[in-house]
Amino acid sequence: MSSNTSSSDFQGWVAHDPSAADGNMQWGSYTPKSFTETDIEMQISHSGVCGSDIHTLRSGWGPSNYPLVVGHEIIGKVSRVGKDVKDLKVGDRVGVGAQSDCCESCKPCKMQQESNCSSNTGTYNSKYANGDKSYGGYAKAWRGPAAFAIPIPEGLPSEFAAPLMCGGVTVYNPLVTYGAGPGMRVGVVGVGGLGHFGLLFAKALNCDKVVAISRSSSKKADALELGADEFIATGEDAEWMNKNAGSLDLIISTVSGSFPLDQYLNLLDVNGTFVQLGAPEDKLPSFSPFALILRNLKIAGSLIGTRQQIRDMLELAKKTNLQAWVQVRPMEEANQVLIDFEKGLPRYRYVLTN
Amino acid sequence: MSSNTSSSDFQGWVAHDPSAADGNMQWGSYTPKSFTETDIEMQISHSGVCGSDIHTLRSGWGPSNYPLVVGHEIIGKVSRVGKDVKDLKVGDRVGVGAQSDCCESCKPCKMQQESNCSSNTGTYNSKYANGDKSYGGYAKAWRGPAAFAIPIPEGLPSEFAAPLMCGGVTVYNPLVTYGAGPGMRVGVVGVGGLGHFGLLFAKALNCDKVVAISRSSSKKADALELGADEFIATGEDAEWMNKNAGSLDLIISTVSGSFPLDQYLNLLDVNGTFVQLGAPEDKLPSFSPFALILRNLKIAGSLIGTRQQIRDMLELAKKTNLQAWVQVRPMEEANQVLIDFEKGLPRYRYVLTN
Repeated sequence: MSSNTSSSDFQGWVAHDPSAADGNMQWGSYTPKSFTETDIEMQISHSGVCGSDIHTLRSGWGPSNYPLVVGHEIIGKVSRVGKDVKDLKVGDRVGVGAQSDCCESCKPCKMQQESNCSSNTGTYNSKYANGDKSYGGYAKAWRGPAAFAIPIPEGLPSEFAAPLMCGGVTVYNPLVTYGAGPGMRVGVVGVGGLGHFGLLFAKALNCDKVVAISRSSSKKADALELGADEFIATGEDAEWMNKNAGSLDLIISTVSGSFPLDQYLNLLDVNGTFVQLGAPEDKLPSFSPFALILRNLKIAGSLIGTRQQIRDMLELAKKTNLQAWVQVRPMEEANQVLIDFEKGLPRYRYVLTN
Repeated sequence: MSSNTSSSDFQGWVAHDPSAADGNMQWGSYTPKSFTETDIEMQISHSGVCGSDIHTLRSGWGPSNYPLVVGHEIIGKVSRVGKDVKDLKVGDRVGVGAQSDCCESCKPCKMQQESNCSSNTGTYNSKYANGDKSYGGYAKAWRGPAAFAIPIPEGLPSEFAAPLMCGGVTVYNPLVTYGAGPGMRVGVVGVGGLGHFGLLFAKALNCDKVVAISRSSSKKADALELGADEFIATGEDAEWMNKNAGSLDLIISTVSGSFPLDQYLNLLDVNGTFVQLGAPEDKLPSFSPFALILRNLKIAGSLIGTRQQIRDMLELAKKTNLQAWVQVRPMEEANQVLIDFEKGLPRYRYVLTN
């Protein structure tokens, strides 16, 4: 029985407590989910580093279920295939994002909106339906449902594909959901890992205008190179809000913590939408509903993306030769990479490689 | 010249300072806008009392431009017609809502979304393009643009039609905009003037489920009679949120001030929308974006409605024999009516009559 349920141990960066977020993950073995005939295994070549990894390592969104292995921007070659897997074969290059399973029976699942599945299985710090824990991509190998392993289009380099699996689709989803494209003026708040994808994809989608919004102009040159037509430095021009009032149709906010939500809303033209992606550990700032009421605005949230959105995004990335700005680092350096990440050093995504 | 620009004084309840909100309006004369050939005059028969009247009388949304005459739920018979008015004639019964003019050239106007006109003329405490002040319906007569005087369908009583012109369309607009109808489960927060219309219209639109949400159950019997299928008393059941989590697709909030926004968001199912109508003098409560992010929710605002929405609403009200719960009071009692309104006595809209 080649694809049986034996659970030989895997090797990866295991977190045992919140200190792991400070660069204290331990390389070691862990027991992945039991193998079923709808699963695959892949040998990991690339694993992107996402802000969620750090939040989870330090129990920032509530107590994490240690031991855990983070990483949910995983690219690799399929090395084992369950008997019931029809679409993948050994050797295929696939990617796994932040979601590894869904129930297929709840309302969002039935709408093919499985990223909002009410019993969503996250790629790490989560559980499969059988109770097995899920483990992520800071590791040598990954095992999980074939249904969430997405083929990577030929010609799209793995180091670019990796951070698209979570960071990329997290901004691609609200951009396409709220109509980014010709005729739309899009602002992206924050020029970091998510923000840099916001600028790249808003440009790739041919928006009329792409505006980067940040506190300082320290990343202005980067933002313009990434595709921004304009740059607003909110900390350097007291008149930024008045000068740009009503100038945007869609704002993608990739920041969290304290930010001037009222003023951002004032940047929106009638019927505009403000989408919050940054998942803060605190509440959003309170705001006046007047802007919402007077100009028929919406504030929305958005969570990763569906498998179809991931497939569409990968095709767009290939077609437009979209190049994520990544810094490739050896898997061995993962702890140092976390430290560098927390210092705000990535320009703009770190990718670990085996 | 029968329809010339002479501005004979009008008679109405004039507010001279914020004390007017406490029942201190003065009956007297005022000078309406100068008559133009696109204007009409009407002899007012009914004028609804709206919360905005009180806010404006006491300068609650910023300093009001006294002297002013409030009232923007106005029904009457056309008594004078400018030469360029094609659609109305003397004797027609018309209604005027919260908006009396628009620029016809801004983006919302070009989209037939003139309720969000960037230089919207409110029916009172506002100015027409020529600089003349606008005066409302707590008066004997009204003069203004024919384009904003909507014919009232025959068979719809004026005392029901009056409060529809602002209060009614303010809830009708977000209900139809966000898809209220078969298949939708709608919650209405607050059983007051706006909330009672929310229940009536959600029912008239054949929503699958209509839920009234209030702090106490003091208005439960009314709410059920108005069309609610269920009633949630948030102050009387500590488990109200858990019991009803994810049970609604659309929530129309007619309250302002401090309210449990986070918990209301938890009542929404995936892709749900929370619409804030109550225009508080303070900010909205701060809230966690997690609900927005995890379930793809939206928070939206909405402002009155367009003329087409008013026409559609009036037709629906006629067709379904929708009966607003009104208390008709003589125009002479307007000051006392304000006092009673502030005490929360209306069940659920006061209508002044000449």
